[in-house]
Amino acid sequence: MNCEIIAIGSELLTPFRQDTNSLYITERLNELGVTIAFKTIVGDRRKDLANAIYVAMGRSDIVITMGGLGPTEDDLTREAWADALGIKLKRDGDLVGQLYARAAQRRWQLTANNLKQADLLDGAQVLENPRGTASGQWLDTVVNGFRKLGVLLPGPPNEIKPMFDEQCIPRLREVLPKRFIATRTLKAAMIGESAADARIAPIYSRFTDVETTILAHIGDIQLTLICGKPILELAEARVNELASLIEEELDDVIYSSSSVKGESLEQIVLYYLEMRGATLSVAESCTGGLLSQRLTSISGSSRSFLGGAVVYSNELKTEFAGVPEELIEEHGAVSREVAVSLAEGIRRRCHSTYGVGVTGIAGPGGGTEEKPVGLVYIAISDGIQTDVVEKNFAGDRERIRFYASQQALDMVRRKLM
Amino acid sequence: MNCEIIAIGSELLTPFRQDTNSLYITERLNELGVTIAFKTIVGDRRKDLANAIYVAMGRSDIVITMGGLGPTEDDLTREAWADALGIKLKRDGDLVGQLYARAAQRRWQLTANNLKQADLLDGAQVLENPRGTASGQWLDTVVNGFRKLGVLLPGPPNEIKPMFDEQCIPRLREVLPKRFIATRTLKAAMIGESAADARIAPIYSRFTDVETTILAHIGDIQLTLICGKPILELAEARVNELASLIEEELDDVIYSSSSVKGESLEQIVLYYLEMRGATLSVAESCTGGLLSQRLTSISGSSRSFLGGAVVYSNELKTEFAGVPEELIEEHGAVSREVAVSLAEGIRRRCHSTYGVGVTGIAGPGGGTEEKPVGLVYIAISDGIQTDVVEKNFAGDRERIRFYASQQALDMVRRKLM
Repeated sequence: MNCEIIAIGSELLTPFRQDTNSLYITERLNELGVTIAFKTIVGDRRKDLANAIYVAMGRSDIVITMGGLGPTEDDLTREAWADALGIKLKRDGDLVGQLYARAAQRRWQLTANNLKQADLLDGAQVLENPRGTASGQWLDTVVNGFRKLGVLLPGPPNEIKPMFDEQCIPRLREVLPKRFIATRTLKAAMIGESAADARIAPIYSRFTDVETTILAHIGDIQLTLICGKPILELAEARVNELASLIEEELDDVIYSSSSVKGESLEQIVLYYLEMRGATLSVAESCTGGLLSQRLTSISGSSRSFLGGAVVYSNELKTEFAGVPEELIEEHGAVSREVAVSLAEGIRRRCHSTYGVGVTGIAGPGGGTEEKPVGLVYIAISDGIQTDVVEKNFAGDRERIRFYASQQALDMVRRKLM
Repeated sequence: MNCEIIAIGSELLTPFRQDTNSLYITERLNELGVTIAFKTIVGDRRKDLANAIYVAMGRSDIVITMGGLGPTEDDLTREAWADALGIKLKRDGDLVGQLYARAAQRRWQLTANNLKQADLLDGAQVLENPRGTASGQWLDTVVNGFRKLGVLLPGPPNEIKPMFDEQCIPRLREVLPKRFIATRTLKAAMIGESAADARIAPIYSRFTDVETTILAHIGDIQLTLICGKPILELAEARVNELASLIEEELDDVIYSSSSVKGESLEQIVLYYLEMRGATLSVAESCTGGLLSQRLTSISGSSRSFLGGAVVYSNELKTEFAGVPEELIEEHGAVSREVAVSLAEGIRRRCHSTYGVGVTGIAGPGGGTEEKPVGLVYIAISDGIQTDVVEKNFAGDRERIRFYASQQALDMVRRKLM
């Protein structure tokens, strides 16, 4: 069975917004073995909306609309479905009651417009929405002799996700042929997409029953392995077999391989630190807080990450990380020596197990022939030994800074391995 | 005239990738006064592709496809256009010659598949592609008695953009009625979308010839005003008139109003600091480097932003910002007093004009009845006076942290105003 997702809202047709809700729905549907054949984005015009629904119901087995179920004049999804299928809307007594009860509880005044949220497509079931006033609808119908499912979801992501998971997925499971999907995600740091692909393509191309997707981010790649079989164990065996072979080939660049979703590099680093009872502090120059920010974005990071200093100016390198002024004068702020001194100094000052120092030129200005934009030194110290690397990262300021933070995290990971 | 954009590629129907090329095309088309009525995303199946093109040519005046013009078996856009319109593909002699010349120059071997890149829809003009082998096509045709434009663009962004700008826009200008577009962007911090809308809707709704779009991010809204007129000065006068009235109404929450694109709050803060010859340092607890990271993401920030400390642990609050241990013991790390002490302490330590302190509970753990998740104290000190605010931000960890950084930036802006 295939599915078409229709995202509704004139704002989604501007240069400023994008539909992202469909990505979540797509992931959940793929897990059920349903692929997406089309996505359509349409504005709030009733005629366009009805046309999009009509076209979709003609060519796809499952049609999901997202949005346009609110109480305003722009919310025309119910009406458009009725137009497209030539069926009637009926005001549902239970829903009217719920709207009144909810309004009374919150001391709202109900308007005539509010009540249209109680209008149901003839034959549709209600999908309850405990998080908002816009109920969803589930329509199991026949178009031109073919069974079709129509699903009306609201627009806000926090309403869509639970409604889809709790009320649509169980209904879909009843309709769809029994099929079990196994998924594995492998993640690797500081290896390019094409370099990784060149090494693993000969492996995954032998597994024609496993769908392998490579997704690349800055200094990070994610491999998703998906296999569907009538028996779950069979599907799991296949993805695990492929995952093992890929792990063997890519070896120590892989930082996450065991879970379905895959952990982030930050999570892995914090997990290793906690496992070892170790702590970390960082002194950041060119990354300017990005490395700390990434680590502290993880809940519970305070157990292993103590903090550190953003030492943008030379004075602060001395003040917070004890880098000797003469060292900066002699070698420059962007140098191997200063990176080492930052790592060692911040470690001492924070009394942490490990200290990391980052200094470089993120650009676009500030580069010289000798020290070009993209040159970054990253050091890690454990109090006995300090490792330092020199890197030349390509790209713009954002990219160079992210690369540097990624490299730093990966060095901590390797130190802990 | 309205337009439909069709983004082609099976990868765009996975949970991992999204079409973003259409955003650029949308922006350029809006500038010409063309609105997007539909966007369709479709995979590499010839039947689905032909269906999408057929549907689009029926309901839209201009249909632009992006992708599927390469030499591989998955590249079926040309064939699908021919299917959809019932017209023939003809191998173009000049294009064949170009392909051979290009291949010879790069010492490639041309295959039969490569040559299909020379196939032109009957009646189409070639859109040259100096950056790749996939030529675009421009088809000016009639469907059911209506004039329609079909545009075939390649997929890679670096090929699409110049081809569209250099070869499609001039052709579109000839077809479209003469119209000039004026744009203004206003940005405001720490005001909700609905609160802002309630205040300005009575104003912008009187300007029916100006399209007003509100885009909300965490603690940030962006208002885009667009007006099209036969004379540029007329369009500019209208957007400027509306912008002045909105500025008057929203007054000091607006931080950027003068430019076409709008500056970010970080940029504005750094701009004001530099204008005043002032410097800034920050001590971050719950934002964990996010505030520093946002400031240092702007090139040239080192002229006014000195750096600061990420003081996740209590010990570091004392070590780096001189917060007295007793103060933390008495009031707790998340308190008005500690925020003030962080701001004053980091200012002293960094010898900056202003110091900012942030402490709070980002969650999801760590909240109590007295101090719930979302409680954040933010302080700013200029050495004479220290202002501090208490906020209860709603949302998840990421949202709370972003709100806190936004509030901090906005407090610096207000201090400098």
